[in-house]
Amino acid sequence: MQIAMIGDKLVEAERIDSAYLDYGMFFGDGVYEVLRSYDGRVFALEEHLARFKRSLKEVDINGIDINIIRDRIVRAYQKSQIANAKIYFHITRGAGPRDHAAQGLEPRFLLLVTKIEDWREQKNKGISVMTAADTRWKRCDIKSLNLLPNVLARRKAQKRGCQEAIFVDENGCITEGASSAFFAIFANVLQTAPLTANILPSITRQFVLEIYKNVGLDVLEKQIRVQDATKADELFIAVSSKDIVPVVKFNEIDISGGRPGKYTKLLMKEFEKLVK
Amino acid sequence: MQIAMIGDKLVEAERIDSAYLDYGMFFGDGVYEVLRSYDGRVFALEEHLARFKRSLKEVDINGIDINIIRDRIVRAYQKSQIANAKIYFHITRGAGPRDHAAQGLEPRFLLLVTKIEDWREQKNKGISVMTAADTRWKRCDIKSLNLLPNVLARRKAQKRGCQEAIFVDENGCITEGASSAFFAIFANVLQTAPLTANILPSITRQFVLEIYKNVGLDVLEKQIRVQDATKADELFIAVSSKDIVPVVKFNEIDISGGRPGKYTKLLMKEFEKLVK
Repeated sequence: MQIAMIGDKLVEAERIDSAYLDYGMFFGDGVYEVLRSYDGRVFALEEHLARFKRSLKEVDINGIDINIIRDRIVRAYQKSQIANAKIYFHITRGAGPRDHAAQGLEPRFLLLVTKIEDWREQKNKGISVMTAADTRWKRCDIKSLNLLPNVLARRKAQKRGCQEAIFVDENGCITEGASSAFFAIFANVLQTAPLTANILPSITRQFVLEIYKNVGLDVLEKQIRVQDATKADELFIAVSSKDIVPVVKFNEIDISGGRPGKYTKLLMKEFEKLVK
Repeated sequence: MQIAMIGDKLVEAERIDSAYLDYGMFFGDGVYEVLRSYDGRVFALEEHLARFKRSLKEVDINGIDINIIRDRIVRAYQKSQIANAKIYFHITRGAGPRDHAAQGLEPRFLLLVTKIEDWREQKNKGISVMTAADTRWKRCDIKSLNLLPNVLARRKAQKRGCQEAIFVDENGCITEGASSAFFAIFANVLQTAPLTANILPSITRQFVLEIYKNVGLDVLEKQIRVQDATKADELFIAVSSKDIVPVVKFNEIDISGGRPGKYTKLLMKEFEKLVK
């Protein structure tokens, strides 16, 4: 008889919820997206769907109709009636007996709509970040459920009173945050790492790289060295759930006098126009 | 109202099974073990428990009493009455709203006992393997649920008729299989990669490194280059669920005349003595 045990409780394996046999659980074998709404409107849905479609392809999960996913997101969001919501969704390869190379599984979809966390204070005052070794796999351009290094880095950061961990590669260059893109401003130049296999193509980054012109900045897509970041005039992170968040402390060093910088605040204002 | 959607179905978020909010699913934030029984006896339980304990520590999941885990394994196995069983178990950080740095979660335990797959034919005839770029994270010494690169490599291998994928690092050296340790024999020297942060401390490897003396081999713990592997006298993989499996084809090149090698067969016989 096949046996399962959940916590301390024995159950017949045939009777457990298939969620316990989800390949998301066994292998992190799935891809996800997080997006948000602003005052009742879902922001950048098509951009997130396009990235999701690419992630599915890269992990060889096939046969997903993106139009159906779009409909589900819209339907769930409308039902929630949450003005400012965070929308998380994922697709995993399926569920069944654990087998690295299983064939013919039915992909599984999960979506969660919750109220967005209130980050107004952090956005007004800025956050502290610390660096962590980038121990992630070599395909961080895929938004997959393999996020243990991100969790471990963020947990370490939190223990030191930091709200984000910034990954640094073996060459001492910053890749990105544990769940955000990373930007520095030197004089009037906005700098961020170019998109490579080590970096998630952030949707918010994409918007920042459209609006920077409006505030009089130039742009440089080049990795930022850790020692340069500490000397930046301004730093910020970008993430879909919070858009632009100023960084005022980097490895315990004050940035822009410990307050959100001028250009960062201008970019935040520009971003507000996008989401209206 | 917080909303969840499972497949095409809307549900109130409060009503979904907590398995859907498991950090194993969101982040692959957990560690696992696979062991087996031979003819009614669980093999190498203490070794697996020791590795599991280390993995828990490395990912900062605390407060787990290994004695309780041992009791659960024994209890579930006895209940199963399966002579030759595969026992999978994991602990994840917990379940709850998705948050990289959540505190105070209750770790979750899952165990599955199933009949072991019948690999007698593969063990008699040997298997085919192909190499794949090692794209995994930098802490493969932790047996974590972040296994997407392993899944992707194994799926590619299967499409080419191979039963295992062998990871190769950026220097052209073999680390290990997607779910196995990798060994080569050159003349009378058994070679395998030394244990580093890139390699799982395989329990079966540990036993092989005890019994090799009994069959007249010497040992060399040094990474094997791909081009050397193709010229090896013998190759094999080692994995708890199947112990020693001869490799007779490596990247489409016949090894030891396309049949299991002499020393490999002797090692398999020695291993049989261990499990009796």
